[in-house]
Amino acid sequence: MIAVLKNGVTEAQKNNLIDWLKSLGLGVHVSEGQYQTVLGLIGDTSKVDIDLLNGLDIIDNVTRISEPFKCANRRFHPQDTIVEVGLGSNKVKIGGGNFAIIAGPCSVESEEQIIEVAKAVKQSGATLLRGGAFKPRTSPYDFQGLHGEGLKLLRKAREATGLPIVTEIMSAAHLDLFEDVDLIQVGARNMQNFELLKELGRLRRPILLKRGLANTLKELLMSAEYIMSEGNENVILCERGIRSFDTYTRNVLDLSAVPMLKELSHLPIIVDPSHATGKSRLVKPMSMAATASGADGLIIEVHNDPIHALCDGAQSLTPEQFDEVAKKVFTIREIL
Amino acid sequence: MIAVLKNGVTEAQKNNLIDWLKSLGLGVHVSEGQYQTVLGLIGDTSKVDIDLLNGLDIIDNVTRISEPFKCANRRFHPQDTIVEVGLGSNKVKIGGGNFAIIAGPCSVESEEQIIEVAKAVKQSGATLLRGGAFKPRTSPYDFQGLHGEGLKLLRKAREATGLPIVTEIMSAAHLDLFEDVDLIQVGARNMQNFELLKELGRLRRPILLKRGLANTLKELLMSAEYIMSEGNENVILCERGIRSFDTYTRNVLDLSAVPMLKELSHLPIIVDPSHATGKSRLVKPMSMAATASGADGLIIEVHNDPIHALCDGAQSLTPEQFDEVAKKVFTIREIL
Amino acid sequence: MIAVLKNGVTEAQKNNLIDWLKSLGLGVHVSEGQYQTVLGLIGDTSKVDIDLLNGLDIIDNVTRISEPFKCANRRFHPQDTIVEVGLGSNKVKIGGGNFAIIAGPCSVESEEQIIEVAKAVKQSGATLLRGGAFKPRTSPYDFQGLHGEGLKLLRKAREATGLPIVTEIMSAAHLDLFEDVDLIQVGARNMQNFELLKELGRLRRPILLKRGLANTLKELLMSAEYIMSEGNENVILCERGIRSFDTYTRNVLDLSAVPMLKELSHLPIIVDPSHATGKSRLVKPMSMAATASGADGLIIEVHNDPIHALCDGAQSLTPEQFDEVAKKVFTIREIL
Amino acid sequence: MIAVLKNGVTEAQKNNLIDWLKSLGLGVHVSEGQYQTVLGLIGDTSKVDIDLLNGLDIIDNVTRISEPFKCANRRFHPQDTIVEVGLGSNKVKIGGGNFAIIAGPCSVESEEQIIEVAKAVKQSGATLLRGGAFKPRTSPYDFQGLHGEGLKLLRKAREATGLPIVTEIMSAAHLDLFEDVDLIQVGARNMQNFELLKELGRLRRPILLKRGLANTLKELLMSAEYIMSEGNENVILCERGIRSFDTYTRNVLDLSAVPMLKELSHLPIIVDPSHATGKSRLVKPMSMAATASGADGLIIEVHNDPIHALCDGAQSLTPEQFDEVAKKVFTIREIL
Repeated sequence: MIAVLKNGVTEAQKNNLIDWLKSLGLGVHVSEGQYQTVLGLIGDTSKVDIDLLNGLDIIDNVTRISEPFKCANRRFHPQDTIVEVGLGSNKVKIGGGNFAIIAGPCSVESEEQIIEVAKAVKQSGATLLRGGAFKPRTSPYDFQGLHGEGLKLLRKAREATGLPIVTEIMSAAHLDLFEDVDLIQVGARNMQNFELLKELGRLRRPILLKRGLANTLKELLMSAEYIMSEGNENVILCERGIRSFDTYTRNVLDLSAVPMLKELSHLPIIVDPSHATGKSRLVKPMSMAATASGADGLIIEVHNDPIHALCDGAQSLTPEQFDEVAKKVFTIREIL
Repeated sequence: MIAVLKNGVTEAQKNNLIDWLKSLGLGVHVSEGQYQTVLGLIGDTSKVDIDLLNGLDIIDNVTRISEPFKCANRRFHPQDTIVEVGLGSNKVKIGGGNFAIIAGPCSVESEEQIIEVAKAVKQSGATLLRGGAFKPRTSPYDFQGLHGEGLKLLRKAREATGLPIVTEIMSAAHLDLFEDVDLIQVGARNMQNFELLKELGRLRRPILLKRGLANTLKELLMSAEYIMSEGNENVILCERGIRSFDTYTRNVLDLSAVPMLKELSHLPIIVDPSHATGKSRLVKPMSMAATASGADGLIIEVHNDPIHALCDGAQSLTPEQFDEVAKKVFTIREIL
Repeated sequence: MIAVLKNGVTEAQKNNLIDWLKSLGLGVHVSEGQYQTVLGLIGDTSKVDIDLLNGLDIIDNVTRISEPFKCANRRFHPQDTIVEVGLGSNKVKIGGGNFAIIAGPCSVESEEQIIEVAKAVKQSGATLLRGGAFKPRTSPYDFQGLHGEGLKLLRKAREATGLPIVTEIMSAAHLDLFEDVDLIQVGARNMQNFELLKELGRLRRPILLKRGLANTLKELLMSAEYIMSEGNENVILCERGIRSFDTYTRNVLDLSAVPMLKELSHLPIIVDPSHATGKSRLVKPMSMAATASGADGLIIEVHNDPIHALCDGAQSLTPEQFDEVAKKVFTIREIL
Repeated sequence: MIAVLKNGVTEAQKNNLIDWLKSLGLGVHVSEGQYQTVLGLIGDTSKVDIDLLNGLDIIDNVTRISEPFKCANRRFHPQDTIVEVGLGSNKVKIGGGNFAIIAGPCSVESEEQIIEVAKAVKQSGATLLRGGAFKPRTSPYDFQGLHGEGLKLLRKAREATGLPIVTEIMSAAHLDLFEDVDLIQVGARNMQNFELLKELGRLRRPILLKRGLANTLKELLMSAEYIMSEGNENVILCERGIRSFDTYTRNVLDLSAVPMLKELSHLPIIVDPSHATGKSRLVKPMSMAATASGADGLIIEVHNDPIHALCDGAQSLTPEQFDEVAKKVFTIREIL
């Protein structure tokens, strides 16, 4: 970590700061420049609060040299992590060259619906089933999901098709209900719900961690670190679009996040083109682009009756449309 | 709510959509234009999912005419809400012309620290004491607060000074510990932790709801609505800076949010200049500007030993600096 | 255009507004709702200033139903526009199924450099040569390009290879120098330099219009409209990354802009993965992703000696790297 | 400037880079850490391209220690700059404790209009007159201003009232028409029109430089540097709101920019609350807040007939409203 002092700092101020840094157990290397003094901090700087330093009146700027994330860092773990989801013969691998499509409706609505969709997407090549039982909605008046009942229906669909199930958790208080969920999803709005992340870190089940609406890649990796530092290393990252000023698309899908995250971290990274764009007609080109960018998988909304979907139907594909998308995606995977 | 259909939509598609809208209990007024058909939806549209409509292939765009928030809406509640915080003779009113300064350290660190700061800020005119016991930190390796111990120290400072206490909650699982906290704060990262908001809605204690890092004013009001629709109408909104592209200041303090929120809602709105800027030397001008913009109060970080603060000390004022800020702020209040 | 009046507007205010709207030659359709009055404006609303209406105290909100762009609008021009660049046998088509790669160095530096790069990229399949002679730099102290001398060297490279040349203009005062440039580029920082756009609209040569750093798709199309409304319909749009909060990548490449712009407009759209990411190692995955998203072409920086490039070398590929990228891109084109 | 090398960089790569840096005339101080090598670059680094370094494959990150702006930098020019606008007895000072209000209509429309408004705002305490003759509009179909005719009318209003005039330039080709304009404004969309900035740098007349829609403070200062490095040191900076995700206000007014810019630079900084909010009812609280934040002046839109304003009337005050705002603003100035 490198701290640059302001021009005009007194010797006393400088020594005060250096003493304090040393009291944190750091080595301090002082280099006097023409206009400014530069302090190089040596040792375990992961515990130094960069915002604190940055805000001090005598500091011009501070730069962290080594990344503050450790468990998620490729530097200390050069090989790709492969996350295994599900049990026995239905087990699916994600990462390290293993590509998977997660598909299913935004919300679980009925037994008939979820089983029908599950069979259709399996037929087209999806290897995991998604479906929302707890739905984070901006408005308290919007449909919030079937909760425990929705989880039961997901299990029935798993029995019927063998597909491992993926669904979102909104509070650690619901963990009992999620006991046999194969892949637990943390939504964008909870990416920095640190208490939830710590609870999930105490499990050993795989976690699908979605990037927040306006969060940086470093913040996403720090949230993964919350889970991993508690002992759960089965984390899959998910790029799902970030907020932009544009009004035609709901979010902007940040596909350069895929190769960038792969450089920074060993964790698998998948892409959600449905939530990113909010329009089903953009899901096909964005699924193909995400695959070409090197993603380890996709999570796509599929509904057997879009117009009547209780939520987000607009971004859902019909099973026929999904089949077409999956075919194109698998062709692109072959080129890579 | 007004939905504009795309050019070239067939009669069958249009009628399908109208039938579905009517099945939701809405009246539909059709108006055929030169290029496009416009549907006016009449009745309780608060349950219509605008994203669903917007995403349909036959829809060009949708506009909500009446706001989706009801409890927080000034239209249905024209007078300012006054929130009362604390008990008996120490009760403090916020809103409706009542201005309050909340002050105290970022984190509670020791009995000596919190009592000393509490006495100092009371002396300067603060009427509530803040102090963090649970700290949301981007990194799992940063100091996370003293938890239950911190809350005990806050209570001691309340006993010593009579100041009602304000502190942040990070999980509904901690509610027991917050039983006699006078004003419970929801931090920016939890603004859309809807399960937490619903739990707080079941209390009758006042809630301080901070705006998320990249959230709109409508989203802030919808989160207030989550609390209020459960029955707790004691909500105070807090502008604390939103993310910007600039690198010199941590966030950009959106002071136009103050008069805008006052127009949209009857809830009190206070401003946090410490977190917004991240630099103690900007707290004074921003406190004065926030007061001049019409805010109902301020929440300011004050620490008796900035350099050794375990977190965020850089944005904290010393008690002497705070005294100077408070004097200027009260002078500006007199002009308004 | 639909204008929603505020609750509580008087009859006199309403009639005043309606009279004024009629004086602009518009028909006004009034519809009284439970809480609010809605005005439907009929006729040529492209001249109504939406910001003016939106700002009036008696107005709640205004929505434009038909897009304010006409020449660029696919509604009035359903077939894809094909832009032809260059002369005679070297002519290159872009759009309507015609895919092209523009490649070359960020800045033209010497005759040897530009000719060597031109030959190499032609060999790998590029059909146009780019090279900067006028460089928009954030700092006045950074290298600003070789100006007229750079344009001469580009012409020599065109003679040597037959590749049409693409280069950026920064002021209409330089138009003489650009007389035989095949494709004139308007950079992101000048996307709303309306005086320059109008001048370019009076030419008949093709214009490559780059999206601004934080501009919406509608603003990009309105800037294209500035050129087209003066009579020059040869406009190619370029997505080159928009500003985001992330610090690892320079910008975020918005690939959903590609299918979205194709829906809104008939103009060709190409993608610049080099400027978007600022890192040469991200150019390959992003070139593949852009191609998979349906772009009509790519513009890629290639340099024969990256470390010594006078500017932006970091985002440049070597000719060998470019050859590998081009091969992958052409394979993906075959699938589409 | 400090450059951190990636882990795993070879000796050869490192030496190559160091040789190249030395060839630029820089001293290089090498410090080997536990995981990474850090290079400290000594000498005139203002000519080093930080983007080039940042993009190199062997570089982890680069930090500039000294700011890249020199003429605008307070470090080398500690006293406040005072810009003088206008001639003789009508001369107005801005900066260094001198506060000024610029007021007038968005667009000049007629002789009667501009003279009436000029007299009214002078009466209320404004000391400069603004009025647009060239208007940058997103749409080519919106009103673009009266051009040369508008400038003539501004001169008549100056004759009638003695107020120096402020108006926007959109192209260096119009400079003849601006010969006796007292303060030439560069609008937000042209903040990085570097060719225009350089031309204005060759004048000696004062320039009002507005911050771009999504530009950082550093970029604003670098644009000021373009003007100043050509010899014109009479630059006034203007904060006028930056783009945000919110939809209720047009932009977010960044008032923390005021004290931050004053710390970084010696140039005066004024605030435009009219364009920032887009709503006349927000102009009063934001004018008061801007004054309290320490701004050296305000630029406010005033119109004698808002509903008929050809453009931006929604954000204009009536003269009566302006009078009330000015009174409040002057009261706040007295406190400071």
